[in-house]
Amino acid sequence: MKVELLSYTPNPELLVAAAARTCYSKKPGSQIIKKITTKKASKLIKKLVKIGHHSILEHSVFTFSIEGVSRACTHQLVRHRIASYSQQSQRYVSLENANFVVPPTIRRNREAEEIFNRILEESKNTYKKLLELGVPEEDARYVVPQAVQTNIVVTMNARELLHFFKLRCCMRAQWEIRALAWRMLSLVKKVAPTIFENAGPPCISEGICPEEEFPCKLREMLKRGGKIGNTDKTNNSHNRT
Amino acid sequence: MKVELLSYTPNPELLVAAAARTCYSKKPGSQIIKKITTKKASKLIKKLVKIGHHSILEHSVFTFSIEGVSRACTHQLVRHRIASYSQQSQRYVSLENANFVVPPTIRRNREAEEIFNRILEESKNTYKKLLELGVPEEDARYVVPQAVQTNIVVTMNARELLHFFKLRCCMRAQWEIRALAWRMLSLVKKVAPTIFENAGPPCISEGICPEEEFPCKLREMLKRGGKIGNTDKTNNSHNRT
Amino acid sequence: MKVELLSYTPNPELLVAAAARTCYSKKPGSQIIKKITTKKASKLIKKLVKIGHHSILEHSVFTFSIEGVSRACTHQLVRHRIASYSQQSQRYVSLENANFVVPPTIRRNREAEEIFNRILEESKNTYKKLLELGVPEEDARYVVPQAVQTNIVVTMNARELLHFFKLRCCMRAQWEIRALAWRMLSLVKKVAPTIFENAGPPCISEGICPEEEFPCKLREMLKRGGKIGNTDKTNNSHNRT
Amino acid sequence: MKVELLSYTPNPELLVAAAARTCYSKKPGSQIIKKITTKKASKLIKKLVKIGHHSILEHSVFTFSIEGVSRACTHQLVRHRIASYSQQSQRYVSLENANFVVPPTIRRNREAEEIFNRILEESKNTYKKLLELGVPEEDARYVVPQAVQTNIVVTMNARELLHFFKLRCCMRAQWEIRALAWRMLSLVKKVAPTIFENAGPPCISEGICPEEEFPCKLREMLKRGGKIGNTDKTNNSHNRT
Repeated sequence: MKVELLSYTPNPELLVAAAARTCYSKKPGSQIIKKITTKKASKLIKKLVKIGHHSILEHSVFTFSIEGVSRACTHQLVRHRIASYSQQSQRYVSLENANFVVPPTIRRNREAEEIFNRILEESKNTYKKLLELGVPEEDARYVVPQAVQTNIVVTMNARELLHFFKLRCCMRAQWEIRALAWRMLSLVKKVAPTIFENAGPPCISEGICPEEEFPCKLREMLKRGGKIGNTDKTNNSHNRT
Repeated sequence: MKVELLSYTPNPELLVAAAARTCYSKKPGSQIIKKITTKKASKLIKKLVKIGHHSILEHSVFTFSIEGVSRACTHQLVRHRIASYSQQSQRYVSLENANFVVPPTIRRNREAEEIFNRILEESKNTYKKLLELGVPEEDARYVVPQAVQTNIVVTMNARELLHFFKLRCCMRAQWEIRALAWRMLSLVKKVAPTIFENAGPPCISEGICPEEEFPCKLREMLKRGGKIGNTDKTNNSHNRT
Repeated sequence: MKVELLSYTPNPELLVAAAARTCYSKKPGSQIIKKITTKKASKLIKKLVKIGHHSILEHSVFTFSIEGVSRACTHQLVRHRIASYSQQSQRYVSLENANFVVPPTIRRNREAEEIFNRILEESKNTYKKLLELGVPEEDARYVVPQAVQTNIVVTMNARELLHFFKLRCCMRAQWEIRALAWRMLSLVKKVAPTIFENAGPPCISEGICPEEEFPCKLREMLKRGGKIGNTDKTNNSHNRT
Repeated sequence: MKVELLSYTPNPELLVAAAARTCYSKKPGSQIIKKITTKKASKLIKKLVKIGHHSILEHSVFTFSIEGVSRACTHQLVRHRIASYSQQSQRYVSLENANFVVPPTIRRNREAEEIFNRILEESKNTYKKLLELGVPEEDARYVVPQAVQTNIVVTMNARELLHFFKLRCCMRAQWEIRALAWRMLSLVKKVAPTIFENAGPPCISEGICPEEEFPCKLREMLKRGGKIGNTDKTNNSHNRT
C-alpha cells in the first residue's frame, strides 16, 4: 500500500477560519482572510470543533492517491458517500500482471501463505486462459480473488475525513482499511495540524468508546508507547484463533 | 439474481404531485394532497419532469432486496452515493457455502465454463482450509473470487433512480448491473408508472446518446421487438472476441 | 405553525431491522422481513443505534407538511442538506394576503408588538403598490419582512432526522426551528418509537452537552416536569434583555 | 454584490485529468500526475465531459467569498445541497447598519424606488427600536426585509458548479442569483478554462432548451453581441409589466 497526498486546499486552516468568522462578522470572507493569523485561525478552529460547529471544516478538501490496496478494501472505502472517487477499472485495465494483498494473518502463517499464494497463481492463470478463450476482461475478472490490488484517487473534505478516521482508525475496522486510514491521517496532520489534532477513533478523539465490551488493543498499544499508525503489524482485532 | 421491492412510499405519485404543487400554491401540502386526483398528479409530474424540475421526485423513495449478485456488481452499485445500503458482510458471514455468479460470456463457452468452475471450487477449498488454519473470515475471503454472491438492501429516491437507470440500463454498463437495473426499473414502474414512464438509458429517456460512436445493440433489439429487460442473454457490449 | 406527517415508510422499524440483519445473515432482506417480529426488530435497532451503526436507519423515510413558518426559519431548515424540499415560491405565489410569524419575545411586549405589526402592515402595502407599479412578485417580495409565512414539504430519513433533532431541539437553536423540530419529533415518535426513543439534543440523547458553559434552561424545565415540546412559550435562550 | 474566488484546488485540471486517467491505467494517480501535460489534460477532460463521465470533475473544488447579496438570493443559493456554506448569522451579527439589495425593476422606476427606500428605512428604525425594547437580534430581524444584504462563503466542486450554472445562469433563474452565477462562472473560467468552457444554461452548454415555450432573451442578447455576465442590467425575465 502506498498513499500520497496528491493535492489539498492551500492554507486549509486559514480558509476554514475565515469561513467560520464570516458567520460572526460584518466583514466578508475575502477581507477576513487577509487579516487572520495562523495562531488565531488555530484557536478559532479548536473552539468551534469542540462545540460541534463542524460544517466550517468542509471548506478544506484533500485528495489522495491510493495505490496497491485490495478490492476488498476499496469496497469498504467507497461506502463513504460524502467523497469523490476515481478507481482503476477492471473492465478497461487487464489484470494479467496484477498484484495481490496478503493479509497479515496469512503472512504470519507459513502453511496459510503457501495455499494462499497457490490459489492466487491459479486464478491468474485461469484469468489469462479466459481472455484467450475470448472472454472480455470485465467478465474474466470474476475469477480474480478479492485480494487483487487496485488504485484509486479519493477526495474528501476535512469534516468527512474526521468521520472516516473515527470509524476506520478504530480497532473494529478491518486491518487493511485501518492501515489506510492511519496513513491518510498522518498525511493530513502535516498540512492541517489543528483540524486533525484529535482525529482518530472515538477513544482518542472524544475519550469515549461506544463499544466498550469489545476487547480492544489500541489503548494497550498506546500505553506501551506503540506507534499507532503501524497497525498492519498488530494482531488483528477479529482474530479468533 | 433475485430482486424484490421491499418497501416504497405509499401513493408515491400523489405525494410527489402534492409536494410539487406546494411550490405554486397558497395551500400547504397537507391540504393539497387531500384533493389531488391520480389523473392530475400524473399530468403535473409529466410536465415538471419534462422541464427539468426533478427535485420533487425525491419525496418518493424505494427499497429493494437484492439477492445473489456478485461482489463485482455491488462494488459498482455502491458507487451511487445518493442512496442507502445494507450489505451482507464477509467479515461476519462465512462464505463456506457461497454461490457464484457466472457471466453469460463464460456460460456460453463450454471450455471457459469448465475452468471457471474449477477455480471457484479450488478457491472455496482454500477458503475453508484458511479458516481451519485459524485465519479469520475477514482475511480468508481475500482468496474468494469477485464472482461470489452477496445480498444487499438498497434505498433510493425516484430522482436518483432515474439517474441510476440512465447510466446502468445503458448498453455501456456491464451486463450484471444492467440486468439488475432493468429489474429494478420493471418493479418501480408498476407502482409509479408516470415517474418512470420514460426511464432508462438516454437513448430511451431523452432520445439522445452521448456516445454515438459506440456500437450499441439496444436500439436494434428494440426494433426487433426484443424484451429489453432480458439483457443478460444478449451479447455483451464489450465483447471484443 | 402546523406540522403534519404527510407520509412515511410503512412499518419503518421492521424494514430497518430487516436491512440491518441482512448484514449479518446468509438470507436476503426479502426473506428476513417475513419472519422478523416487532419485538425483535425493536431490540436489534436499540443495540445497533447504541453502538453507532446508524446507516441502517436511512431506509426509513418521513415526509412532513410544514405550514406557516417564517422564511427566517426555512432559511435555517434548508441548510440541512441530506433532505428533500419543496417550498412555496415567492416568485410564483403572491404575498398580498401573506401572514407573518410573531416571535414570542415580541408577542410578550405590548410596545414591541405594536411597532412590529405596524411595519408588517406597511410592508404589505408597499408590496401591493410595487405590484401595481409593474414590479414582478419576485422583486416586490424584497420588501417583505423575513417574518413572512411560508409552506414547505420536507422529506428526511431517520438518520438525518436524529441529527436534525440533535441540533435543532437544543436550546441553542432559535425558538422557531426548535418548536418545529420538537413537533416533527413528536410525530415520528408515534410511528417509529424505538428509532426516536432517545432523540433530541445531546443532553437527552447522549447525556452530554458540548457547550456546558452555555446557560441552558432545558434541564431545569425537565426537572420541573415541563412539557418539552412547548418551547415557543419558554423564554428565549438568547434573550439578552 | 462582490464575488471573489477565495481558494481553489491548485492546478485543478491536471488533478482532474490524473484522477480520470487512473481509471484506465495500470499506474496510480501519484505517478500519472507527474507526467501529464496541460495539453493532454485538457484533451482528456473535453472528451470525458462530452461522454458524460462527470464524476472526475469532483476532485477540483472552488471556494467563493460572496458579499452583499440579499437573503432572498441566499435562500435560493443554499438549496444547492452538494456544497458547503458558512453564512453571516443574523442571530449574532446586528443588522443596525445593514445594506439592502435593490432589484433592477425597482431601481429603474422612480416611484417604486422611492417607496422601496422608505419602507427599508422604516424597517431599520423598527429593528433598532425592537433591540432597545429588549428584543434579541434573532427576533428583531423578523421585521427586516428580504432585501437585506448578507455575506456567505461557498465551496462547490466543479461537477456541482456545472449543474449550478446550468440552472442559475439560465434566464429562468431570478436576476440576482443569475448575476451571481455568471460572476462565479467568470472567476472559475480563468483557473479551469477547459472544465468550464461550455458551462452555462443548457442552451449554451448542450445546445438545447427544456423550456422552449419560455420567451427567453438570452439568445437574442448573444446575437446582439451582448455581454452575457452583465445580466443584472437586462430586463428581468419574469417582468410581466
